[in-house]
Amino acid sequence: MGTSAPVKVYGPPMSTAVSRVLGCLLEKDVPFQLINVNMSKGEHKSPEFLKLQPFGQVPAFQDEAITLFESRAICRYIAEKHANKGNTKLYGTNLLEKASIEQWLEAESQSFNPPSSALLFQLALAPRMKIPQDEGLIKQNKEKLAKVLDVYDKRLGDSRYLAGDEFTLADLSHLPNPQYLVSGTEVKELFMSRENVGRWWEEISSRESWKKVVEMQNSPPS
Amino acid sequence: MGTSAPVKVYGPPMSTAVSRVLGCLLEKDVPFQLINVNMSKGEHKSPEFLKLQPFGQVPAFQDEAITLFESRAICRYIAEKHANKGNTKLYGTNLLEKASIEQWLEAESQSFNPPSSALLFQLALAPRMKIPQDEGLIKQNKEKLAKVLDVYDKRLGDSRYLAGDEFTLADLSHLPNPQYLVSGTEVKELFMSRENVGRWWEEISSRESWKKVVEMQNSPPS
Repeated sequence: MGTSAPVKVYGPPMSTAVSRVLGCLLEKDVPFQLINVNMSKGEHKSPEFLKLQPFGQVPAFQDEAITLFESRAICRYIAEKHANKGNTKLYGTNLLEKASIEQWLEAESQSFNPPSSALLFQLALAPRMKIPQDEGLIKQNKEKLAKVLDVYDKRLGDSRYLAGDEFTLADLSHLPNPQYLVSGTEVKELFMSRENVGRWWEEISSRESWKKVVEMQNSPPS
Repeated sequence: MGTSAPVKVYGPPMSTAVSRVLGCLLEKDVPFQLINVNMSKGEHKSPEFLKLQPFGQVPAFQDEAITLFESRAICRYIAEKHANKGNTKLYGTNLLEKASIEQWLEAESQSFNPPSSALLFQLALAPRMKIPQDEGLIKQNKEKLAKVLDVYDKRLGDSRYLAGDEFTLADLSHLPNPQYLVSGTEVKELFMSRENVGRWWEEISSRESWKKVVEMQNSPPS
C-alpha cells in the first residue's frame, strides 16, 4: 500500500512524441518504466500493440487502470494527476494560467508542429533512410516555420516563456522537434537568428529534465 | 453586478474553427456576441486584429480580462470555466473521464483533422475559389482518412461516443469538417459505409446545439 507501480511508457526515446512524454514525467518527478517497441521490426503494428495504441503509433502509456495514447493528452493527464508533485507550475495553478498554456500548446500542435515535423523528416530522417529529399517541401516548410517563429519572437519579447513567466507544458511540448533541427540541420539559423526565440530555446533545452531525455535518446537501446 | 457581458467571438460561422467554438458555447449555454471579420477584405490580417490573434487566423475570443486564440484551447477554457452550466458532462467530471476526452480530442487534432481539412479544401473550397483540384492529394487524403475512420469504427462499436457513454468535447471537435464533407461531397461514403461511424455522425450532427451552428452558417452575414 502507498507505493504505486511506476507508469509505463511504450516506445523509443528517439521518437519525438515519446520524448515529449518523458520530458513531462521528469519535470513532474514521476517514476516510469520505459518499454522498448522495436519499430524497425514493426512491433508498433502488432495486434498486441494495437490493443494499447489503435493507430499503431508511439507512445502508448499505462498507469494503473488507464491506457492512453497521444503524447499531448498523456502529458495533460500526468500534469493534472500530479499537480502538486515536481514542477507544480507546469500546467498552471488557475483557470487563466491554464487557458494561456492551452493556447500555446495548441499553437505548437497546429502551427509549429506541422512545418517542423516536415523539416525533421526531410532534413534528418530522409537522408538516413536513403529517401530522396523534396527541395520544394523543404523550402515551403521553412517559410511556414519562419512565419510561426516571427510570431513567437514577438511573444517572447514580451514574456519569458510562451504562456507567461513560468516554464510550462506549452514550452515543453516544443522541445522534441528542434532538438534534432537545431543540433544537426540548417534550420538552426531560423531559431538562432531570432533574438528572443534563440534565448528561449537555449533556456528550455538546457533544463535538467530535457538533458536527461537527450541522454536517453543517445543511449543505445537495451 | 452579477450579470456579466457576453463573451465575444470574432470570425464567420462558416469557418470550421469558429463553428467549433460556437458549438461549445451553445452546449454550455453561454451567451455570446459574434463579431464579423470580413476575411475576403483581409480584416484578419489587419494590425488591429493581429493584436487579438497574432497568427492572423479566426477565431479570436474575449471574455472579461482574457483574449484567446486556437479553437480547441478556447473550447477547453469555456468548458472548464462553466463546468456546472449547460451540458455538465462535456469535459468530464473526473481525471479518468477527462483523460479519455483529451485522448480523442488529440486524435481529432493530430489524425482526423489533417486529412479531413485537406479534403475540405480540395473538394469544397477549391472549386468555389476556382483553384484547380489536385487529384493526387485527394486520393492520398481519402486513404489517410479511411484508415482513421477504421479505428473510429472499431472504437464506436464498443462505445456510444468517442470518449465513453457521453457526448463530450471530443465528439464536438469533430463536427466542423464533416459538416461540409458529408453534406456535399463524395467523402460522405467514407463515413456512411462504416456502420458505427455513420450512426455516431447522425447522432452528433443532429444535436440541437449543432443544428443552430449550421443555421448560423447558412444565414447571410449581417
